[in-house]
Amino acid sequence: MIIVLKPGVSRKEIKDISKRLKEKGYLVDVSEGKERVVIGAIGSNVEEKEAFMAQLSFLPCVEKVMPILKPYKLVSSEYREKTVVNVGDVKIGGRKVVLMAGPCAVEGGEQTLQIAKALMRAGVKILRAGAFKPRTSPYSFQGFGRKGLQMLDAARKATGIKVVTEVMEPRDVGMVAEHSDIVQIGTRNMHNFELLKEAGKSGAPVLLKRGFAATIEEWLLAAEYIAKEGNQNIILCERGIRTFETHTRNTLDLNAVAAVKQLSHLPVAVDPSHGTGRVELVAPLSRAAVAAGADGVMLEVHPDPASALSDGQQTISMKSFLSLRKELDAVAKAVGRTLG
Amino acid sequence: MIIVLKPGVSRKEIKDISKRLKEKGYLVDVSEGKERVVIGAIGSNVEEKEAFMAQLSFLPCVEKVMPILKPYKLVSSEYREKTVVNVGDVKIGGRKVVLMAGPCAVEGGEQTLQIAKALMRAGVKILRAGAFKPRTSPYSFQGFGRKGLQMLDAARKATGIKVVTEVMEPRDVGMVAEHSDIVQIGTRNMHNFELLKEAGKSGAPVLLKRGFAATIEEWLLAAEYIAKEGNQNIILCERGIRTFETHTRNTLDLNAVAAVKQLSHLPVAVDPSHGTGRVELVAPLSRAAVAAGADGVMLEVHPDPASALSDGQQTISMKSFLSLRKELDAVAKAVGRTLG
Amino acid sequence: MIIVLKPGVSRKEIKDISKRLKEKGYLVDVSEGKERVVIGAIGSNVEEKEAFMAQLSFLPCVEKVMPILKPYKLVSSEYREKTVVNVGDVKIGGRKVVLMAGPCAVEGGEQTLQIAKALMRAGVKILRAGAFKPRTSPYSFQGFGRKGLQMLDAARKATGIKVVTEVMEPRDVGMVAEHSDIVQIGTRNMHNFELLKEAGKSGAPVLLKRGFAATIEEWLLAAEYIAKEGNQNIILCERGIRTFETHTRNTLDLNAVAAVKQLSHLPVAVDPSHGTGRVELVAPLSRAAVAAGADGVMLEVHPDPASALSDGQQTISMKSFLSLRKELDAVAKAVGRTLG
Amino acid sequence: MIIVLKPGVSRKEIKDISKRLKEKGYLVDVSEGKERVVIGAIGSNVEEKEAFMAQLSFLPCVEKVMPILKPYKLVSSEYREKTVVNVGDVKIGGRKVVLMAGPCAVEGGEQTLQIAKALMRAGVKILRAGAFKPRTSPYSFQGFGRKGLQMLDAARKATGIKVVTEVMEPRDVGMVAEHSDIVQIGTRNMHNFELLKEAGKSGAPVLLKRGFAATIEEWLLAAEYIAKEGNQNIILCERGIRTFETHTRNTLDLNAVAAVKQLSHLPVAVDPSHGTGRVELVAPLSRAAVAAGADGVMLEVHPDPASALSDGQQTISMKSFLSLRKELDAVAKAVGRTLG
Repeated sequence: MIIVLKPGVSRKEIKDISKRLKEKGYLVDVSEGKERVVIGAIGSNVEEKEAFMAQLSFLPCVEKVMPILKPYKLVSSEYREKTVVNVGDVKIGGRKVVLMAGPCAVEGGEQTLQIAKALMRAGVKILRAGAFKPRTSPYSFQGFGRKGLQMLDAARKATGIKVVTEVMEPRDVGMVAEHSDIVQIGTRNMHNFELLKEAGKSGAPVLLKRGFAATIEEWLLAAEYIAKEGNQNIILCERGIRTFETHTRNTLDLNAVAAVKQLSHLPVAVDPSHGTGRVELVAPLSRAAVAAGADGVMLEVHPDPASALSDGQQTISMKSFLSLRKELDAVAKAVGRTLG
Repeated sequence: MIIVLKPGVSRKEIKDISKRLKEKGYLVDVSEGKERVVIGAIGSNVEEKEAFMAQLSFLPCVEKVMPILKPYKLVSSEYREKTVVNVGDVKIGGRKVVLMAGPCAVEGGEQTLQIAKALMRAGVKILRAGAFKPRTSPYSFQGFGRKGLQMLDAARKATGIKVVTEVMEPRDVGMVAEHSDIVQIGTRNMHNFELLKEAGKSGAPVLLKRGFAATIEEWLLAAEYIAKEGNQNIILCERGIRTFETHTRNTLDLNAVAAVKQLSHLPVAVDPSHGTGRVELVAPLSRAAVAAGADGVMLEVHPDPASALSDGQQTISMKSFLSLRKELDAVAKAVGRTLG
Repeated sequence: MIIVLKPGVSRKEIKDISKRLKEKGYLVDVSEGKERVVIGAIGSNVEEKEAFMAQLSFLPCVEKVMPILKPYKLVSSEYREKTVVNVGDVKIGGRKVVLMAGPCAVEGGEQTLQIAKALMRAGVKILRAGAFKPRTSPYSFQGFGRKGLQMLDAARKATGIKVVTEVMEPRDVGMVAEHSDIVQIGTRNMHNFELLKEAGKSGAPVLLKRGFAATIEEWLLAAEYIAKEGNQNIILCERGIRTFETHTRNTLDLNAVAAVKQLSHLPVAVDPSHGTGRVELVAPLSRAAVAAGADGVMLEVHPDPASALSDGQQTISMKSFLSLRKELDAVAKAVGRTLG
Repeated sequence: MIIVLKPGVSRKEIKDISKRLKEKGYLVDVSEGKERVVIGAIGSNVEEKEAFMAQLSFLPCVEKVMPILKPYKLVSSEYREKTVVNVGDVKIGGRKVVLMAGPCAVEGGEQTLQIAKALMRAGVKILRAGAFKPRTSPYSFQGFGRKGLQMLDAARKATGIKVVTEVMEPRDVGMVAEHSDIVQIGTRNMHNFELLKEAGKSGAPVLLKRGFAATIEEWLLAAEYIAKEGNQNIILCERGIRTFETHTRNTLDLNAVAAVKQLSHLPVAVDPSHGTGRVELVAPLSRAAVAAGADGVMLEVHPDPASALSDGQQTISMKSFLSLRKELDAVAKAVGRTLG
């Protein structure tokens, strides 16, 4: 079971309740998050479980006792109403559908600044760009690393745009959280549990991409790893799954977007650039994502896609982006929302 | 290469051109469709091919000579502008997004009539329902067969609604084409080449569902089998592919919808009922389908889903349908179309 | 439930038992096979089912009454001990592992005869070759059809070799069964239910390839369609499934081979040529198939693979075949069998 | 291109060659491994590349210059003859097929010692057991961690058995390498590039499991990350991929085993326990793995599978293991090898 304690609970109360659980035969796991303490108690052979759970729920320090029936708990829609993630004054998960746009990789300080300015002019409030790039081949361009992160930070400070960028190692989470606004966990790291825990401990907004071969349940369990550390500032992001189809780089799974909106209280973004891998499919799938209920759309945009250091074949130009923006605005309105 | 002859070409002209091809070393395949004759000429070792193709293209009876570079020819967007399939006065592939709705299976004459009337009142012009039901298990309900087809025909004659229904065997194509308006080829029969050929020969409008494990290219090649018989009245229909995900029955692939709209001139419909297999996902994925550019949406609707003879878990009620209709109308308008 | 009647049951007895079932509220389906009559009775809302089943089982004409708990019945290992399919004097499913070898397609009468002779000399008792070829593209070589079948028949009569060849249409089943020894149902037709029924009615040995995207359960249900017509002479054949991997044409699934040997009483063959699509993988996967428990191995062998009309890249030469034969013999002995 | 320098090359020589490359316009990446230095030079727009490569290859400090045509270089079969990984006196990749056996997770010190002794008596030289357990759910048993590692180390010292165990975080690589003999990188971490690099730097034997949705090429590129750090002591391990099939937990892909034996010089092990997830399929798939050419088989074995803390449904008993051992010995001999 999961025992959610009330905010402000004392160390002694945590100790007492842990002791009671252990005496009963439970394996006890205390997660002290920023906002609240959650105790996970696993006891497959414990007797008279239900009566004991009822007792616990009446303790003054206990907010909630939940049986572990479903595999994910803290991120499920049963646990909480809709979550809105606040990134400064940008709200993700509210009425507005939020755009995140930018190049695949940071390619230089001046270029990053120019793109940030152009996006701001286009009404985009979140810049996406990778400083640390996970690459299948050790011989591919791996991003500018820390320098890239500093370029992003500089562009952010100069323009006020928010930045989402990927972190690949647990030890870098603090640094990335400090120099950006949203810490991204990429598709290949969805099962990097230590990274998930560090992202949870950081308290920073986390954009959690779905593993390209992860089921919806596994994706929500990865989010649960973050939430268990006391961080519910999670934006899920669908980016395509691996199927037998070879025409598209991945198969963007909008079923999952609609499903996760019902199974979880977390906001969901969609990345049609990686999801399709083809520039000519980005616009129709972006429209479809908004119609399916996405809270955000993440787009690879570059002033000159043909010269982009990576992912040129799936990156749209600023001009195409401006045209797509209008289309998305119309679809957002058709489903009772607006474009943020 | 493909040699498309002009309409009204004479038997002698066909014979002459075939002879020339054979003398040059080609295997020759003459397809006499209703509208025109198409000659396929396969000659992997023929010399001076290009000059010969040029010669052929100047013959008075020849409309077009196309090299076989891409695997599908007659259905490709290079071959023709947009196709609009006329089903009586209903146009599929034009500005209007067309709804097709009804129960999974025909369940009785009176019930079919009542549903047809209710759908007509809701502005739906095409009724979908299965008389012949392909079932994975030989012990499952296999549909009412011919009787079911007659019930559909009766409802159609009584109300004027158009009917789309599945055919499973080559020998039944004529009968189904006579008693309905659109002949459906189901997902399990996408590679039933004889059935495709018969559907081609019938000249009737054909709704060709994508095989649940077929690539986009294979799907278009299946359409090519129909087109090669001279029948371009083809409506492609995406209905979900098989992936590792188990939360949904299938993974509705809207990437394929957007891709096929670009690769082919044929109209594309989407079936979110089978595509997701979950009633709570039908509405968001229907909206997404329209936003992605679908020309039609095919929905399982039943007055009492809980009592439906099959597919109850993915069938929406009339009430939900009426509400969804409004949502789809709004999305259609947002993408510059209207709901038909 | 399934009611298996005893051999030699009278028409009146069938009628009586059907009547009892209908009165009780069951939908009744009588399958009159060559060997025995099987009655399927579907009655989801029938009351006091178990008592009624017990009554039926005591009727003198009833051999067995089985509840429909598992989806497949007649082909399950619960229903029967191991089945040995007799193809003349060749036994498939016994102690011997049987080789089936030959070109992808029949390429001519003389060539077929020469291959048959060469295979006979190499101790192979079953020739595989396609007269009717299902092809993804309508422009690909579709086989010699009836003529090809006659060539196969001629080679068979001249040499005494047994022949397995594919049938694609229900109406051709009788003809193919007459001119060959084993009727093959290909991967694209595993869900062609009418074809399955016709193959069942023919009584001929049937080699049923697994659909390239069919689950093990669906494969066994397809076999059930054949068995329900009274024909248990079924050889299952694994030939690779469609996955995300692109290095191999398909992913040969030996898990399924081992699983089906436990779930069903039917013999199982393996086709590593289509399963891998790469000539260099045929030998190791053939050895693995025998080690996993396969009752037969089906190989594409051609005197000159480079000139084969189809599938050259996965076809081994006679020389490689002779060498592989020795390897398979050693592995067969290691698992307590011999090569047939 | 990849420039492999000769052993014992001086710092100055490295500097000189790097300078030359940079002047020519290459991005230069120097990997100083334990055994040798490898320089990766990426220069997509460099002119007269081939002449320059030829010049470099004549430098006295250069062993080899390889164009980057194939994506993986150091692990490819073109680069080197067969690699034998020495784990103390146990050789993996030689004539002997090596067994690795043990429980899924370390469950206690005494139990680990008893299993180690029982395995030694059965001729097994490598014990597998997890101290750090990657779990999909944060609420599942996560292993005993460091304590578990110490238990393994104690059993290893007391009995002389070799130990393979998983490492999940880059910072733990050194510790795990010290307390065990082979460092395992699990399926979920195949794309954890920092972990791969650390494993490379450690110089310890590494067992690299295939990602459950990784292509063969991606798997070899992950191995390349390790090799690039100068560590070629890599044992690849196939453990099943994710497909549409639900009967088995994964689909063990023996095609990949045979393919990788040809594409790479590295030894390959197979894990049929995770690969199938079903105890009744472990024996046939183990036999098949050896027949397909596997250099090692990794098995979950537990004295009492029903009480195992994890993976009980795929764990065989000691008794079954002893029986399987004999079967594998017979198959190994049939393919010209012996069981180690």
